[in-house]
Amino acid sequence: MAERIRCKAVLDRVMTADQAAMLIEDGMTVAVSGFTPSGNPKAVPLALAEQVRSGQRKVRVNLLSGASTGPEIDNTWAELDMIARRVPYITSTALRKAVNGASEQGVAYLDQHLGMTAQNARYGFYGPIDVAVVEAVAITEEGNIIPSTAVGCTQTYVALAKKVIVEVNSIQPEGLEGFHDIYMPADPPHREPIPLTRVDQRIGKPYITCGADKIAAVVECSLSVNPRPLAPADAVSQAIADNIVAFLKAEKAAGRLSAGDVPLQSGVGSVANAVLMGLEKAGFEHLTFFSEVIQDGVIRLLDAGCADMASATSLSMSHEGMMHFKENLESYRGRIVLRDSEISNGAETIRRLGVIAMNTAVEADIYGNINSSQMNGTTIYNGIGGSGDYARNASVTIFMTASSAKGGKISSIVPMVTHVDHTEHDVDVLVTEQGYADLRGKSPKERAALIIENCAHPDFRPQLRRYFGRACEASHGAQTPHILDEAFSFHKRFRETGTMLEPNE
Amino acid sequence: MAERIRCKAVLDRVMTADQAAMLIEDGMTVAVSGFTPSGNPKAVPLALAEQVRSGQRKVRVNLLSGASTGPEIDNTWAELDMIARRVPYITSTALRKAVNGASEQGVAYLDQHLGMTAQNARYGFYGPIDVAVVEAVAITEEGNIIPSTAVGCTQTYVALAKKVIVEVNSIQPEGLEGFHDIYMPADPPHREPIPLTRVDQRIGKPYITCGADKIAAVVECSLSVNPRPLAPADAVSQAIADNIVAFLKAEKAAGRLSAGDVPLQSGVGSVANAVLMGLEKAGFEHLTFFSEVIQDGVIRLLDAGCADMASATSLSMSHEGMMHFKENLESYRGRIVLRDSEISNGAETIRRLGVIAMNTAVEADIYGNINSSQMNGTTIYNGIGGSGDYARNASVTIFMTASSAKGGKISSIVPMVTHVDHTEHDVDVLVTEQGYADLRGKSPKERAALIIENCAHPDFRPQLRRYFGRACEASHGAQTPHILDEAFSFHKRFRETGTMLEPNE
Repeated sequence: MAERIRCKAVLDRVMTADQAAMLIEDGMTVAVSGFTPSGNPKAVPLALAEQVRSGQRKVRVNLLSGASTGPEIDNTWAELDMIARRVPYITSTALRKAVNGASEQGVAYLDQHLGMTAQNARYGFYGPIDVAVVEAVAITEEGNIIPSTAVGCTQTYVALAKKVIVEVNSIQPEGLEGFHDIYMPADPPHREPIPLTRVDQRIGKPYITCGADKIAAVVECSLSVNPRPLAPADAVSQAIADNIVAFLKAEKAAGRLSAGDVPLQSGVGSVANAVLMGLEKAGFEHLTFFSEVIQDGVIRLLDAGCADMASATSLSMSHEGMMHFKENLESYRGRIVLRDSEISNGAETIRRLGVIAMNTAVEADIYGNINSSQMNGTTIYNGIGGSGDYARNASVTIFMTASSAKGGKISSIVPMVTHVDHTEHDVDVLVTEQGYADLRGKSPKERAALIIENCAHPDFRPQLRRYFGRACEASHGAQTPHILDEAFSFHKRFRETGTMLEPNE
Repeated sequence: MAERIRCKAVLDRVMTADQAAMLIEDGMTVAVSGFTPSGNPKAVPLALAEQVRSGQRKVRVNLLSGASTGPEIDNTWAELDMIARRVPYITSTALRKAVNGASEQGVAYLDQHLGMTAQNARYGFYGPIDVAVVEAVAITEEGNIIPSTAVGCTQTYVALAKKVIVEVNSIQPEGLEGFHDIYMPADPPHREPIPLTRVDQRIGKPYITCGADKIAAVVECSLSVNPRPLAPADAVSQAIADNIVAFLKAEKAAGRLSAGDVPLQSGVGSVANAVLMGLEKAGFEHLTFFSEVIQDGVIRLLDAGCADMASATSLSMSHEGMMHFKENLESYRGRIVLRDSEISNGAETIRRLGVIAMNTAVEADIYGNINSSQMNGTTIYNGIGGSGDYARNASVTIFMTASSAKGGKISSIVPMVTHVDHTEHDVDVLVTEQGYADLRGKSPKERAALIIENCAHPDFRPQLRRYFGRACEASHGAQTPHILDEAFSFHKRFRETGTMLEPNE
């Protein structure tokens, strides 16, 4: 461990997780490293939870992170009702229940664009940060921090926090040093252009600037990570992936920007992995990625020589993927770079590079508005995450969803979405297993025809056509025909009868 | 006129507007210079309309512009049903009626973020551009174009068009030469950082690059402009302005970014003008503007020495304002710069500079979603314009609206907006004449309480409180409580009874 804690000045602050957890007090604002279940601290959060569980202390805090966290924080703390406010994203089941009403004391959850969290923290929108807890693979001689498998907002949180607790986790490979590129922009009016013009370019430092003085505690640990399980692609996912690949091939044939010309942003999950495999099969070459997360499929494309480079803010792989990465770590040096989420999800960088964005919708409406977060406009699932950062700034914005859910009882294409995360102004292409609708340059009424015929499930097409037809009549051909009394009729029918299908279908 | 048409190679292409209009054929895609009723060509569009009106020709085209146009194009052409497709924005009454169903042949209107129009045109999303028609104050020796009072997407349209028609308008002051800063970014993967770091910085050329070869026609004209009338601020507008100024003063006092530290983006109209006057009165100094349009109020602040600098893509003033500007033109040289709308409305530039954005909402809901374009989710008024470019990238995003409309019969604060142009994720502050709600860092339920109590009209507060209370109960405290069956009940009541007020109020 001595070679990981290289800063002599902090050696007197090495302590147990239990001791370090005592630095976190009730009512504080705590910020943690990491992004998704990757790179977050584990020992101190678990120790704190144990202090609360055992009745030793009462601690309830405001929690900031890069995105969601591993179960050691969001899930464990939510089960003990230890989270009063939460920014910017969640995926934990326990925390989801808590923000949707299960918490006795209530959790104020601000669901926010992940690319703006660091900036908004610096602008003072969340108030002062009391403690930052950071997972590291090492502390440098000067007291700076080498992060582990994710960056997120850690540099900003360390810069703003009054005290920093560093967890040096010996499970995380020390060889990750050199994979990070840390760049925190100055704030207006002194901000300069972010100099990034290529996915493989380094613009910052390989460590998070901290300094020994700010480090209040160093905790040694060797807690293993809790990676995402990787679901295999089913037939529907595969068909969605095939349609996306077909679109990208058509773009290439038309001489427009496509995969291989500009970087791809690809979300998490089985569809995303299937798209990647499809691109390889279709003969795309020299792929690059400018994403939030690097998941198993990206690693496989790097291995196959089909992809040249991947930039992200987080390594978020399955257990098998992570083992493979660790074993072959040196082969990825220079081909993987981990950046601050402010850069990976930055409006400036995404628009400049011309990223093609692929994200998942919960439901889409016939005019191209996307709900990516809330059931019945009311109950939040995860949140908007980084999808809005990419959707708003990509060269081409693709949203994908299975055309139906719950065994065909729910149509993912509805007259009007019950919550809008991405507006009609930002959605270029909608893809389901049925096909794709290219919405670029189209008016709302043209989009409706395309979405119903190309994307909706055939079972729901007749009733969608009828709604659209009657809305056009009722509105005398207005820009975006709607019958407000029936805009949510699909949702109502499901609630009342258990299916969105009309009885005569 | 000889000193305005300095390029000898185009002298043989000087012709009448009627002759030049013959270059525009049925089915073509036509792109015009300008942004708002400013800087658009006039003689050729009017001549073309006359050819159609007289029955000499049948011409129906796809029309691209920077934003809306003066009445010579949108209004005149819409009255003759000459527009088949329209991108990206409208304000004309005749065209509004046409896109909402009055056109016999239908108008496909794509309502789009103004900062993305040029890029999307270059990406090929609207197909090839046949003719660009450009208003100029002069043509340089090399055949380049000095635009008039607006830039918009003109550089991109000229670069993409097969033929260019230049209208040299002797009414527009030749002294405008030197006010423009034309910069068209390269497209990915070759795009470099936009080097702009200060509002007063010049990064491009004082002319639109064209070349004599591309100029198919030069038309001399002296048609006067049709500026916007300027409405005086009524008591409600003044109260909204006072509340915005109060917010900005509170920001300054709290040590956060405020007016004078970072540039302001300010929309068009009487509220915007009242805000500017309020800032002067409140003692703000060294104001700068990074906006789409420069209107009368900005000129007055420059005159008063309270503002240092204004950057925009359009001079869009009242008749009196424009007369005053022309008479004192030299005093504004170096203090006003006119940029491409891709730069004035750019994600990169707005976020870097930390612009504070102030835009108008048609309606807002209790959770902070904003409708800025569509009545009953159906009938479009103008469009999203540039509001999304600023809202998504500003350091602080402010939306304003009067709390009620139609003599108190419509509440601008509703349970759910019928169309979302700006999502809850992008709205920082909501302002009405009743007060302001600071939504930063707040969860949806916290926002609802603030918006109802601080922003809604007192007449509507009881029924908004009841909706919110019952929705909280029905959803058992979920993230964003809604009762879908009643989400549009305010709109339904207005339709059925002529007022949104509940009978027992």
